Amino acid sequence: MPLILNRQQVKDAVAGVDLVAAMERAFVAYSAEQAVVPAVGELLFADPPGDVHIKYGYLRGDYCYVIKVASGFYENPALGLPASNGLMLLHSQSTGELLAVLLDEGYLTDLRTAAAGALAARYLAPECVARIGIIGTGVQAELQLRLLHRECACRQVLVCGRSELSLQNYRQRLADSAFSIETTLDPAAIAQQCDLIVTTTPASTPWLASVRPGTHITAVGSDTADKQELASEILAAADLVVVDSRSQALSRGEVFRARANGLLDDSPVPELGEIVAGTSAGRSDDQQITVADLTGVATQDIEIARAVYERTKDAD
Amino acid sequence: MPLILNRQQVKDAVAGVDLVAAMERAFVAYSAEQAVVPAVGELLFADPPGDVHIKYGYLRGDYCYVIKVASGFYENPALGLPASNGLMLLHSQSTGELLAVLLDEGYLTDLRTAAAGALAARYLAPECVARIGIIGTGVQAELQLRLLHRECACRQVLVCGRSELSLQNYRQRLADSAFSIETTLDPAAIAQQCDLIVTTTPASTPWLASVRPGTHITAVGSDTADKQELASEILAAADLVVVDSRSQALSRGEVFRARANGLLDDSPVPELGEIVAGTSAGRSDDQQITVADLTGVATQDIEIARAVYERTKDAD
Repeated sequence: MPLILNRQQVKDAVAGVDLVAAMERAFVAYSAEQAVVPAVGELLFADPPGDVHIKYGYLRGDYCYVIKVASGFYENPALGLPASNGLMLLHSQSTGELLAVLLDEGYLTDLRTAAAGALAARYLAPECVARIGIIGTGVQAELQLRLLHRECACRQVLVCGRSELSLQNYRQRLADSAFSIETTLDPAAIAQQCDLIVTTTPASTPWLASVRPGTHITAVGSDTADKQELASEILAAADLVVVDSRSQALSRGEVFRARANGLLDDSPVPELGEIVAGTSAGRSDDQQITVADLTGVATQDIEIARAVYERTKDAD
Repeated sequence: MPLILNRQQVKDAVAGVDLVAAMERAFVAYSAEQAVVPAVGELLFADPPGDVHIKYGYLRGDYCYVIKVASGFYENPALGLPASNGLMLLHSQSTGELLAVLLDEGYLTDLRTAAAGALAARYLAPECVARIGIIGTGVQAELQLRLLHRECACRQVLVCGRSELSLQNYRQRLADSAFSIETTLDPAAIAQQCDLIVTTTPASTPWLASVRPGTHITAVGSDTADKQELASEILAAADLVVVDSRSQALSRGEVFRARANGLLDDSPVPELGEIVAGTSAGRSDDQQITVADLTGVATQDIEIARAVYERTKDAD
């Protein structure tokens, strides 16, 4: 029988994983074209509205392949259910045998996205961060901050959200952390006060119009052609814009929006995996503005699923 | 937690399902275009050689969607493992929640293919069958015969295979059945003696060159552009050629091969679901030659997965 883990068991297993190191491997493999990742499968539903994505692939020379199912049903919260759900299947690349069923309900996707943000901060944030800025108050806003704990010595945080209620709720959820968290309804305050900013929302009108020199922004919310968290002027003014996937940046994300708005040309931008591998340069001084535009790549799923499988198997 | 069944539990649950009725619904829904079935996802491996197919879809107005993973790793038998493997996932169409994980290892695919053969016999076999002919000695050859038991009163069977050993093995596996089984290495004997023939092999050169008037053949082995079990002359001479999917018949199966060989024109052939629904005519007299060319459709997977889920859930 394959290993079968429910959400809590996945959480327990992944707690011991060095997620940022896993994401380093994921992005390097992606940029080195070691991954075989076919087009995403999709099922769409109208009533109630929902979408299902099936992502699958493998790394050449690895022992496994991974199939991820992720769903979003946006009326679920009214029923007391989370909007997002999902699972990952890990199979043997040499026999097709099913090795693990990870019933993580989307947790691993949330976590690998947050770990990618921490990795971007490791390579792109200024040396000295005075204040971290978080835009959004959801699960991703929480996980991004938690994963930054190990990457950044700064413990001063300003969080911006749409309502006082969601901001207070966010602060309560992070009361167990070492961060000192203040809140604001004004995104301009984030731009004025923070030098490491993470945007985590499904916005289609930008939160931020400009930022100060010496700021790094990681944007993880935009995963369609319509969504946009950053004014395209920010990307135009940035010293360095980095994506996780150049090919995905042709159809979605902040870089896509900035090009569509005529504020960024089509010249290739470096990938995060190239900066990790040292084949592209990262931040070169503390006054630069840098932007990491992350839309998510399948190698992240492969690395995190394999890590959970290996930790659980080894613990047996 | 979703329902999770291993292969044996799936076998136990499906034993109580009226599979041919489920396949009737499957083919009618398919032909009535009630199904949403995107293109099949595929992963290919070179060393060792293997392929993985991800099939997914749903029926409009149904409560579930189904994702099936099926793999073939052809060096597995040398390791003592079956070449084929697979699982099915059943999710809610209204919330995305995972309802069931059926770790059937490909058994449900084998079974639904056999049940489709029985359904084809119900609608297309001559009234009076003197002898059933089976070509092939594998799992599908076994299941096809077992599923014919309820559809056809005939208990006289002639089986044709590549070796005496595989034929004896086949006869032993079916020793518990009510069938009286004789064996032959000569496929022409099948054509001369049998009036209900099922071909179940991955052959790329035809087994049968011609058949007698009054014969029905169901061919289930050809699922690629290259495979062919029946000489195209048989389809050219047939009074009625039926497919499960006209669109799939454009790229694979016996009809595809007969058209490629210039022996069948491009005029549309009826679908099995249309014959079941009564919108196309089936066999009209006992002297006709009929051929059912089945390449397998996703609604079969949806119906059988849902049936297993419902029987198990109701038994709780």
